[in-house]
Formats: sequence, structure tokens, C-alpha cells
Amino acid sequence: METRVDSEFDRALRLAERSCTPGVYDADLDEGWWIGGALHGGYLMALCARALGLRLPEHPDPLTVGAFFLSGGRPGPATVATEVVRRGRSLSHGAAVLSQQDDEGRRERLRITAAFHDQGADGGEYVCSPPPAPMPPPDECPPMPRHLERTDLFDRIDLRIDPDTLGWHRGEPSRRGEVRGWVRLADGRDPDPLMLLVALDALPPVTLDFGLDGYAPTIELTAHLRARPVPGWIRVRHATRALAGGYVEEDAEAWDESGRLVAQSRQLVRVPRA
Amino acid sequence: METRVDSEFDRALRLAERSCTPGVYDADLDEGWWIGGALHGGYLMALCARALGLRLPEHPDPLTVGAFFLSGGRPGPATVATEVVRRGRSLSHGAAVLSQQDDEGRRERLRITAAFHDQGADGGEYVCSPPPAPMPPPDECPPMPRHLERTDLFDRIDLRIDPDTLGWHRGEPSRRGEVRGWVRLADGRDPDPLMLLVALDALPPVTLDFGLDGYAPTIELTAHLRARPVPGWIRVRHATRALAGGYVEEDAEAWDESGRLVAQSRQLVRVPRA
Repeated sequence: METRVDSEFDRALRLAERSCTPGVYDADLDEGWWIGGALHGGYLMALCARALGLRLPEHPDPLTVGAFFLSGGRPGPATVATEVVRRGRSLSHGAAVLSQQDDEGRRERLRITAAFHDQGADGGEYVCSPPPAPMPPPDECPPMPRHLERTDLFDRIDLRIDPDTLGWHRGEPSRRGEVRGWVRLADGRDPDPLMLLVALDALPPVTLDFGLDGYAPTIELTAHLRARPVPGWIRVRHATRALAGGYVEEDAEAWDESGRLVAQSRQLVRVPRA
Repeated sequence: METRVDSEFDRALRLAERSCTPGVYDADLDEGWWIGGALHGGYLMALCARALGLRLPEHPDPLTVGAFFLSGGRPGPATVATEVVRRGRSLSHGAAVLSQQDDEGRRERLRITAAFHDQGADGGEYVCSPPPAPMPPPDECPPMPRHLERTDLFDRIDLRIDPDTLGWHRGEPSRRGEVRGWVRLADGRDPDPLMLLVALDALPPVTLDFGLDGYAPTIELTAHLRARPVPGWIRVRHATRALAGGYVEEDAEAWDESGRLVAQSRQLVRVPRA
């Protein structure tokens, strides 16, 4: 399978650098990435990471991306302002702020800080890593239920949920705080580190598996990109260590079809008020 | 036990705001926090978080702090430049950059982004959280072995290691990638969220438990502060999910003496070259 040159995802990640202010990019946020009450956070992270990558050509692969979400993204014009923090031998660092104009003025949507490196073709030795989460193959997993009012996102990504972790949808949340699923881009584009930033945040929040319905906004998400994925589905598991004090930490692990762990993330999410 | 007003830790965190440039603070980094080849990263995070806290008095408690480490801190003068990103109703966000002058010019040591809130006295309901890692009481755990050349840090913090996780020191690393220990400030100062930023990064790296000796620099560390700790020891467990591709992700969990999970962190660390 080859990457389709003109994919929906790549179109949604288009950036135009301003000639008068190098390092500042104009984008047009695609309404197809709407989920619940805002544009998908992983999509916005991927856009910021792509902008930073343009500034750091000597280190093509994001290694770790930390994002703080400040307000919900809306379809339409947006600006990504990038800053090169440090160019090193094995790592380069940068920061990016995505903002949009709204009725109250210019508002930041998210800001990321990231380290980039050159992952190399093989990704290096794996001494220890979690085995792929066991689950049925994609064609035995149902598509993600349309549990929210507007779920355009699920036309952009093909998301299949392990039926064993769909109890919340039947009104029987397991209270284990675990959700598993398969993710790929609906347009057939191959996965890469930018797609992994989407995949890490594509599954429904673990709060559903605790019977807590409603908007669960991400405060912060840090992703580690551990290897370039091979073409095919990405297998993702969401789990939590702690749902406490009004916040839940949610950990994602992602494997490619070769069975290799390709990405991890941890996010802090505000628990929906019951 | 009451907080001693004039503690070594508080002295090391002293900041003087510049009258000509509000939000920029001068500090004097304390050589007593030296470990291995640089000043302790948790100490530098605490200093940056303290500076941001001064800018966000309406939200006294750090909730999540994400730090990128750019170069090793040195004893002596340093500058913390803060930026208030957003003041919200329940959360406020800010960023801070710690830099120092050296022979090659002004160099950033680390930059943090953080969300602050008001944790409240009780910290809210705990729905699920990991129980305290089982280990012997502090007086049955030996002090951290002085395995590096300069370990001034261990005069500042009292660190006791669970003997069950000291195999690496006897030349018998368990290869489980787990280290457990007790932490408190040697000067008797009570723990608080700033001290937790130190405690989360006080134990030896899990790479030692894989028999990988040598400098293991942190690329990025994100901490979640889940509750204000009660006075006493902080119990910490370090573990990893993946040592792969030249990097290891290291997760820390910290409990106070009441048995409550008070903080979590995840960091990405470069594996020492064998």
C-alpha cells in the first residue's frame, strides 16, 4: 500500500508560511475533524508538529510532543507561530502556538513544545516494551458508536472498538477504565508520526468506562513517538492509573501491524461533572 | 511537624523580580543540588513552577507541569522569565524559561509550561488510584548508595531505597525496570507540590535496573500534582513500560503518609550508551 499523495489528512495539514514573518504559518482548520464541541485535539497537535518539522529539517521525526490545550479549535483560519528553541547534534527543540481570531479577539487554542530527532529506518533495539493489547481483528470490531451529537471525525478516521470494551455503550461500564480499538485514516493514507498523534487521542475517553458521560476536556497531553509505523492499522489501548480529585490521567499505547510499540501518550483530562 | 520557615529548600528557591522587567526573576542556583554532571532537574522544575506561581496567585496549586530539559544547570546566577498564557475561571496557564550565561552565551536550561488551579484542602474524591507501593518502612531501607562521583543532592534530600530494588548496586539488576524508595527533605521542611516535583525525580533511573550504567539525561518530564501531601515521607515508585530505540519512558508515582496518591510523572530519558 502506498501513501496517496492527495489525502484528506494531508490537505487538512496544509500550511502557508508568511513571507513577511518567517516561521509563522497560516492554516485553514478542516471542519471534518469536529468531535463533540470542538475540533479534534490530535489533529491540532499534528498541525503544530508539522509546522515545527518544517523549521527543523535536520531532524525529521518528532520524538516527544507536549501539548497544553487552552480553548476549543473551530473550523476556519488559524495561525501557527513557531519558535526554534535549540538545534542540537542528535535532537532539536521547538515550540509552536496555534491561535484563532474569535469574537473576543485572538485566542490561543494550544501550544506545544517538542523535541525532534532522526528516528532512522529501523528505530533501534527494543529491550522491553508491552506486547500488543489482545483484541479481535478489525473486521470483528464494530465501528465507534456515534454517541455524540456531531462526530464528523469518524468520517475522517476509521475507528473500530474492541467489543469487550464497549460495555459503557450498553449501559454496563466495566469500571476498569480501559478502551481498546483499531485506528486508520479513512482516506487510506499510511500512518506516520503525525497520524500517530491523531491515533493516540482517537479512542473515547476512559471516563465513559466509569459511567461518566459528558465533555471530558484534555488539559495536557504528552506523546512519545517511539518508531515509524509500517503501513496498516494502528492498535491502541487507553487505560488509566488514577481517576481522582476531578481529573483522570489517561495513558495510550499504540502498536503498528508489525506488533511494535510505535507511540505512547499520557494526558490529564477533567472528569465530566455528573 | 511544622514547616521550618528558613529551610535549605526554600532558600534555594529564592527569586527576586526585576523591577524593570516584571515577570523576570533572578535566582542563584544552589550547588547543593548537584547530582552526576548537573544540577537536579526536579529542583530546576520547582524553581520555575515557583516563579509561575508568583504570577498566578488566584490559582495557588500547580496541577500539571511539562518540562523540556535543554542543557545542564550549573550553580550560580540564573534567570527565570515567565509568561502568563491564560487566566481562566478554574485553571490558569503559564510558561517559564530558565536560562544561564555561560562561555558560549546565554543558554536555556529548561522551559516549562504549566496549568495551575486551586486544589482545595481535601483534593476531592478518589474513584480509583494505585495503592501505595508495598515496601519496608524508611528505617529498614538503606540510604541511596553514592554511586556517582558528586552526589551533593543526597545531603539535601533524605532518600532511602527499598532493598528489594537495589540489585543493580550488587551487580544483579533485576531487569524489571522498577525502583522504589522514600523521600523527604533533609532539612525537615514539609512536603508540598514544589517538593513533589523534586521527589518525582529523586530516585535513581530505571536504566540502572537494566544494568545500564552512565548518564541518562531526561529529555522531557511531565508531572501531575494530584493532591497536597500531608507532612511526612513521600513514597515513590519508578517503573517503565518501554525501553526501546535508545530511549526509556519512566513513570513515577508518589504517595504521602496518608496513603494517598499525591503525584504522578512520566519522563522520556535517553538510554546510556553501553
